[in-house]
Amino acid sequence: MATLRVLGVDPGLTRCGIGVVDVAADRSARLVHVGVIRTEAGTAIEHRLAALAEGLREVVRAYGPAVVAVERVFAQHNRQTVMGTAQASGIALLVAGEAGLPAATHTPTEVKAAVTGYGAADKRQVQTMVARVLRLDALPQPADAADALALALCHAWRRGPSAASPAGALTPAQQRWADAERLARR
Amino acid sequence: MATLRVLGVDPGLTRCGIGVVDVAADRSARLVHVGVIRTEAGTAIEHRLAALAEGLREVVRAYGPAVVAVERVFAQHNRQTVMGTAQASGIALLVAGEAGLPAATHTPTEVKAAVTGYGAADKRQVQTMVARVLRLDALPQPADAADALALALCHAWRRGPSAASPAGALTPAQQRWADAERLARR
Repeated sequence: MATLRVLGVDPGLTRCGIGVVDVAADRSARLVHVGVIRTEAGTAIEHRLAALAEGLREVVRAYGPAVVAVERVFAQHNRQTVMGTAQASGIALLVAGEAGLPAATHTPTEVKAAVTGYGAADKRQVQTMVARVLRLDALPQPADAADALALALCHAWRRGPSAASPAGALTPAQQRWADAERLARR
Repeated sequence: MATLRVLGVDPGLTRCGIGVVDVAADRSARLVHVGVIRTEAGTAIEHRLAALAEGLREVVRAYGPAVVAVERVFAQHNRQTVMGTAQASGIALLVAGEAGLPAATHTPTEVKAAVTGYGAADKRQVQTMVARVLRLDALPQPADAADALALALCHAWRRGPSAASPAGALTPAQQRWADAERLARR
C-alpha cells in the first residue's frame, strides 16, 4: 500500500520538535523518527538559526520525507518568543524549499482537531492519541516532539488520498481557516 | 583609513531592501550597492524564502560585507504581514551565520535616531539624510532600499570605532533597548 512520509516540525529556537511518520491510504501510521533540535539560548541568533537549518537538513537527508508540515505561528502569541518561533518556522520552510519538497503549514487548532477530533484538546490528549495511533508504548516526549508527530499526522490525514473532502469542497470552518491563511500570507 | 563594509537588510517577502555601504572611522560613508530582492506573492512560501536566501547569498558573495545588520521585527506590528517579515529576517540572519559573518539587529527607532538624530523621524527625513550622507543625486528608491542603507549606516555608527560610548557605557535609552532586545531574544 502506498504511504506518504511526512516530516512534521514544531518550530522553536530553544527546542524545535521533529517527527517523521509514514501514513498509509487507510490512515494507519508508523513512527519513523522523533526528536528535538536544540540551540543554546546564549548563542548569537545567526548561529542558532544556522544550527537549526543544518539539523533540519540532516533529518531530510536521513529520512527523505515527501513533504514538510510546519506549525503556523500567530503574532498574537507570547510576544517574547513569537519572533524566534517565526524565524525558526521560516528556516524549516526554507529547508523544505531548498530540498525541492512541498511545505504546508497548519494551525495548532487544525492539528488538535485532526488528531483528537476536538480543536480545543489539551497537550495530554494530543500526546495520548499520537501514542495510540503510532502504537507507542509511552507518550512521546518532550511535548515539542509530540506536537511535531501530531502535525505530520494532521498533514497526512488532511491532504492524504483518503481525505473526506475533495479539493475545493471545504467545510465552513475550513473555509475560514483558508481565508485566514491567505490573509496571513500577504 | 580603515572602513567597515556593512550589508543592511530591511526584511520583507514581497520586497526585501538591500544596502551595502563602506563607513570610515570618521563616520563618512560611501554607497557600494543598493537594491531590492522581490518574490512573487502568489508563489509558495518555501520557494519565496529559498529565492530570498539565494538573492541574499549573491549579495554577500558579490560585495563581501564584514557584518550584516537586519531590522528588528516586532510582533505588535501589522499582523497580516509580520510573520512573513519575521521569517524573512530569519533568512537574512541565517545567510549571515552560514557565511561566517556576525549579524546584528536594530529597531526602526534606533535607525531613525542614528541617521537623523530623531527617533520619530518620517521616511522622507530618513531618505533625505541617507542621500546627503552618501552624496547621492536623488533620494534612494524604493523606501525599502533607503531603509536598508539607513540600517547599514546605523550599524556602523553605533558599533564603529568612533562610537561615542565605549562598550558597557550605555545611555539610559540604550540600556532600555538592550533590555528589550535581551527579552526579545529569549
